[in-house]
Amino acid sequence: MNPQQHINIPKILQTLRETRPIIHHITNYVTVNDCANVTLAIGAAPVMAHAKEEVSEMTSISSALVLNIGTLDPAQIESMLIAGKTANEKNIPIILDPCGAGATTFRTETAKKLIEQLNITIIRGNAGEIATLAELEAEVHGVETGKIQNTPEQIAQTLAEKTGSTIIITGKEDIIADKTTTYKLRNGSPMTGKITGGGCMTASITASFASIEKDPVIAGIAALTCFGIAQQLAEKISRGPMEYHINLFDELYNLTPEKIKDHQNYEKIR
Amino acid sequence: MNPQQHINIPKILQTLRETRPIIHHITNYVTVNDCANVTLAIGAAPVMAHAKEEVSEMTSISSALVLNIGTLDPAQIESMLIAGKTANEKNIPIILDPCGAGATTFRTETAKKLIEQLNITIIRGNAGEIATLAELEAEVHGVETGKIQNTPEQIAQTLAEKTGSTIIITGKEDIIADKTTTYKLRNGSPMTGKITGGGCMTASITASFASIEKDPVIAGIAALTCFGIAQQLAEKISRGPMEYHINLFDELYNLTPEKIKDHQNYEKIR
Amino acid sequence: MNPQQHINIPKILQTLRETRPIIHHITNYVTVNDCANVTLAIGAAPVMAHAKEEVSEMTSISSALVLNIGTLDPAQIESMLIAGKTANEKNIPIILDPCGAGATTFRTETAKKLIEQLNITIIRGNAGEIATLAELEAEVHGVETGKIQNTPEQIAQTLAEKTGSTIIITGKEDIIADKTTTYKLRNGSPMTGKITGGGCMTASITASFASIEKDPVIAGIAALTCFGIAQQLAEKISRGPMEYHINLFDELYNLTPEKIKDHQNYEKIR
Repeated sequence: MNPQQHINIPKILQTLRETRPIIHHITNYVTVNDCANVTLAIGAAPVMAHAKEEVSEMTSISSALVLNIGTLDPAQIESMLIAGKTANEKNIPIILDPCGAGATTFRTETAKKLIEQLNITIIRGNAGEIATLAELEAEVHGVETGKIQNTPEQIAQTLAEKTGSTIIITGKEDIIADKTTTYKLRNGSPMTGKITGGGCMTASITASFASIEKDPVIAGIAALTCFGIAQQLAEKISRGPMEYHINLFDELYNLTPEKIKDHQNYEKIR
Repeated sequence: MNPQQHINIPKILQTLRETRPIIHHITNYVTVNDCANVTLAIGAAPVMAHAKEEVSEMTSISSALVLNIGTLDPAQIESMLIAGKTANEKNIPIILDPCGAGATTFRTETAKKLIEQLNITIIRGNAGEIATLAELEAEVHGVETGKIQNTPEQIAQTLAEKTGSTIIITGKEDIIADKTTTYKLRNGSPMTGKITGGGCMTASITASFASIEKDPVIAGIAALTCFGIAQQLAEKISRGPMEYHINLFDELYNLTPEKIKDHQNYEKIR
Repeated sequence: MNPQQHINIPKILQTLRETRPIIHHITNYVTVNDCANVTLAIGAAPVMAHAKEEVSEMTSISSALVLNIGTLDPAQIESMLIAGKTANEKNIPIILDPCGAGATTFRTETAKKLIEQLNITIIRGNAGEIATLAELEAEVHGVETGKIQNTPEQIAQTLAEKTGSTIIITGKEDIIADKTTTYKLRNGSPMTGKITGGGCMTASITASFASIEKDPVIAGIAALTCFGIAQQLAEKISRGPMEYHINLFDELYNLTPEKIKDHQNYEKIR
């Protein structure tokens, strides 16, 4: 074990599993089932509710709120704002996944509105989405990253400074940055790009950790490390993307302190 | 085979597979794909339709109607009432899954409204949800059961008496009760709690059996026994929740009279 | 290799994988996750967006548009018309899946309205759905085909003549017809009928091919051949429908020129 890697991720995971926090999701209908199952696999309890009639009450009984704009519409935005305000009042962390920001004006504007009107704890996106929100040049290919001008760490730091939120960029290497600190993480598998929902699941796992770990940077490191190691272990035993998809959940469920210590790979770069 | 276990479940299953009844679902977007696939695996034909413009016509051509409030909103409630009234007029059985009743006022009130305004054949929930509707004390942890004061059989019997519906409570042991009779069932696996949709799938399977078996208690026993045995067989060959999830469907699909007779485990307790 | 089978499907597949076209879906919430994953497995990039605020812009950046009415409502129809008009203006192919046409008036009328108001490149359905739209006698069992009077090739040709669109009927044998030409294809597996989403996935794959191959008949042949061969290979190694479902994606992902040449089975019948 690298002495630089000072965070006791196994202990945080154990606390998460003992606490079994409720994670409220207002999210897209494409990957919502994966989000629910990945939240269960890491040890938390998912709830999904989108009606403005109940989102405030559902958030109140939850320990974290995930907002994902993957298939947004005006009614959903209204509900996200209602739930988000309740979360802010009650100091419940909000994790925003600006899925597809940069692909359409509606998505970009919605993500910006949520960031403006709510106090977002963590924003998780790919480099293109985060660059769009940071108002740096970027190309977004549908919901995937196209060409970008800046490094992921520059992009994350720029948006962290602009918003005060902790920023997570997932990609070949993952970046976590707040205003003062940046980490680079090297777990994960390229197979995640061959299935839908990799980013959305990252947001659900991050929310699960953020619900029991006050420091969003540490929560993010724990989340990306656990999910990234599960990806590496799943990749080794899978003959295609859908077998990988199945193994991903089961490796996450079967994660042990030993596997975490053997594979964790993050460093502070600022 | 226990001589107490007098119901010819293999025969009912065979009839179901030969009839291939259409099961109309108005349900949540989290587990809807699982509901469709589990309905196919047991031998019925799922249809999903939620628009008020078509739910009455879709129910008319169906042999059972599933109402599941897992991700409800006002438009969906309106459609549930329209479809439910058609089902009642045409003597098509309705299976209600009050998913999350007790978690928010909106869910509790909606479940009560559906029970009041419709003639529900079977209500399927966990102990917390059913206790909420029976107005007994209960704690609901998101969409999961928290602490409850009464035994599941007391809870089921209370709601059966209040509503006239047949009540199914799924949990460590399953309970089926109507006004006069109660059964306890001991098939199933704790792995079902590690995936999302276990309850929703139970409702779909129950609806499939209720569409061809007039006695809701017998339909419920057949459904819980078949699904419970599939769970036990899947658990034995699965290394994690998602492999279990896959095997669950395939064990259900491959269920034989022999497997049912070897594993069925229910008793009349009232 | 049959010398009649003159289309270089491996080359078209290679172009598709190198191009990685964006495929915009406005589709149902039952099988949307499968549609996204199958689009990735064949080598394209799925996006899903349904809000009228963004569908035109999302279609503009896409290379094909899938319209699937599996869980339609009036707001979705409005968005389909908006997206479809943009697609027509920009010469982006539209693939319509009239899921459940014939089951309810709402579905039949909606499918007809889309065909009337838009220039649809390819319509993909089962024999019952296509017969309904061709105004031939047919029985639709929920979203499945019941008894039909005409042969699939007659049905496909009738609708092709009526609409000018290329028609694909999937079933025991698949048919592709335009006004002048008809092909019969014999790849595929009956296991596809045991899972939900087989038809929807066919539409996504067809859209992926149509986005890079101008001739809709050739695009359809490539799509049905690739998906059909994946089905046959998956069937051989699967013990039930859900294992089959997993293997289906992975066989599609792992498809090679050799596998295509060894198994392709189509003929021109008109």
